[in-house]
Amino acid sequence: MLIVGEKLNGTLGPVAQAIKSRDTRFVQELALKQAEAGADFIDLNAGTGPQEEPESLVWLIQAVERVTDVPLCVDSAEPAAILAGLEAVSRPALVNSISGKEQLLSEVLPILSGRSWGVIALLLDDQGIPGTVEERLAIGRRLIARTRAAGVDDERVFVDPLAVAVSTRQDGALLALDTMTKLREEFPSIKFGLGLSNVSFGLPARKVLNRVFLTLAVAAGLDMAILDPLDDGLYSELRAAELLLGRDRFCRTYTKAFRAGRIG
Amino acid sequence: MLIVGEKLNGTLGPVAQAIKSRDTRFVQELALKQAEAGADFIDLNAGTGPQEEPESLVWLIQAVERVTDVPLCVDSAEPAAILAGLEAVSRPALVNSISGKEQLLSEVLPILSGRSWGVIALLLDDQGIPGTVEERLAIGRRLIARTRAAGVDDERVFVDPLAVAVSTRQDGALLALDTMTKLREEFPSIKFGLGLSNVSFGLPARKVLNRVFLTLAVAAGLDMAILDPLDDGLYSELRAAELLLGRDRFCRTYTKAFRAGRIG
Repeated sequence: MLIVGEKLNGTLGPVAQAIKSRDTRFVQELALKQAEAGADFIDLNAGTGPQEEPESLVWLIQAVERVTDVPLCVDSAEPAAILAGLEAVSRPALVNSISGKEQLLSEVLPILSGRSWGVIALLLDDQGIPGTVEERLAIGRRLIARTRAAGVDDERVFVDPLAVAVSTRQDGALLALDTMTKLREEFPSIKFGLGLSNVSFGLPARKVLNRVFLTLAVAAGLDMAILDPLDDGLYSELRAAELLLGRDRFCRTYTKAFRAGRIG
Repeated sequence: MLIVGEKLNGTLGPVAQAIKSRDTRFVQELALKQAEAGADFIDLNAGTGPQEEPESLVWLIQAVERVTDVPLCVDSAEPAAILAGLEAVSRPALVNSISGKEQLLSEVLPILSGRSWGVIALLLDDQGIPGTVEERLAIGRRLIARTRAAGVDDERVFVDPLAVAVSTRQDGALLALDTMTKLREEFPSIKFGLGLSNVSFGLPARKVLNRVFLTLAVAAGLDMAILDPLDDGLYSELRAAELLLGRDRFCRTYTKAFRAGRIG
């Protein structure tokens, strides 16, 4: 299971401030902390405003690459920023994200073509987030046809089945889990990624729900999660789930994490 | 999901002492605490020695029934104790347990015949605990043929697929989860029950593993767990898993548990 560290996100107050004031030290420290805590990728979102986003993202990438070799996840809703980010990074990484939205597909897929990047693909389209597994599968099929046509191998596509708040619809988590199971039957090489925290929106003790959802998603075949790698509750849950699912040979990763004081 | 409170067990030191000294107050308090913490059944095991077990179990049942209406789970490896317990209880309850062991089957099944009790059925036999899903399914089929022949409806049989320590075999948890999924395909009305704690034997931070295993088992179709209902970590995990799996209408049980200070 790959961990994408979510903390360097320009939609969060202190990070937005650090990006605006070009606070190199702040962003480098937050990158390093996530790398040390086990992030396999570091998400970089410089979304403080569409005008300055490409330039801010390039600055952010360069600042972070000076202190860590952990690959990056270039996160933007703006094709122009994604393109600028892609040209700035020194190593293949992840694009976060495309979706079934036509404009996004037509502008971002040509950028990915012929490169070895991975891409996160959200199961929504111009009509929004569908309320049934079947509609999400339909978007998934269309998306995968387009990534294949652009020369992006299925192994590099991380489909996000989109967990919506269980406080607003009771099957918000189940829809995402069932979509994963069914889409994998059709496309065995496709990967799955998830942002965890939407699912608990509007409920108390959100951390409990987020970590239990992580276990359910790992059991349903999740390959990657966008999360806070500094959250030891989530980290414990992930290591325990992988151990119990038979993916931790000789319990080495779990016992190592325990010795590092991260399980509890 | 049904919770069987596990704390009144004569194989645990302080409980053994209380049974030996006929400490009514101690056992009543432990029963009440478990009932208040949400136990749907209270397990009673008086296994301090085969000679005195039937008499001790009857004393234990009578002491607990004087303070709570929560149904009991009569827990013994001795058919004589089970029979004595069955005659002592005032309400239909659970028997813990039978298995594929021939002597147990031939002595306990006639006791269950014609009564409305439930029974926990372990997937092991005279050869021990099998190491493959297929062998466990074979024991399950034989067991269910026998319970049916004794007039026990499938709905009253809680099959325990037996999670063994992941520290000794990497697939210890997976075997139990896969066995549940496959046996349910063959016998849709059968129930599943599990003791949680064996799975983490020999590893550090066992509570983390036990609660994550609970989530995995609930997702795989668990109907009942034998656990410590006073353990808020386990209780939180269970309530969160049920909410995320769409089994908590309007999030009522989860938010109520939160207000009672039990989620965290």
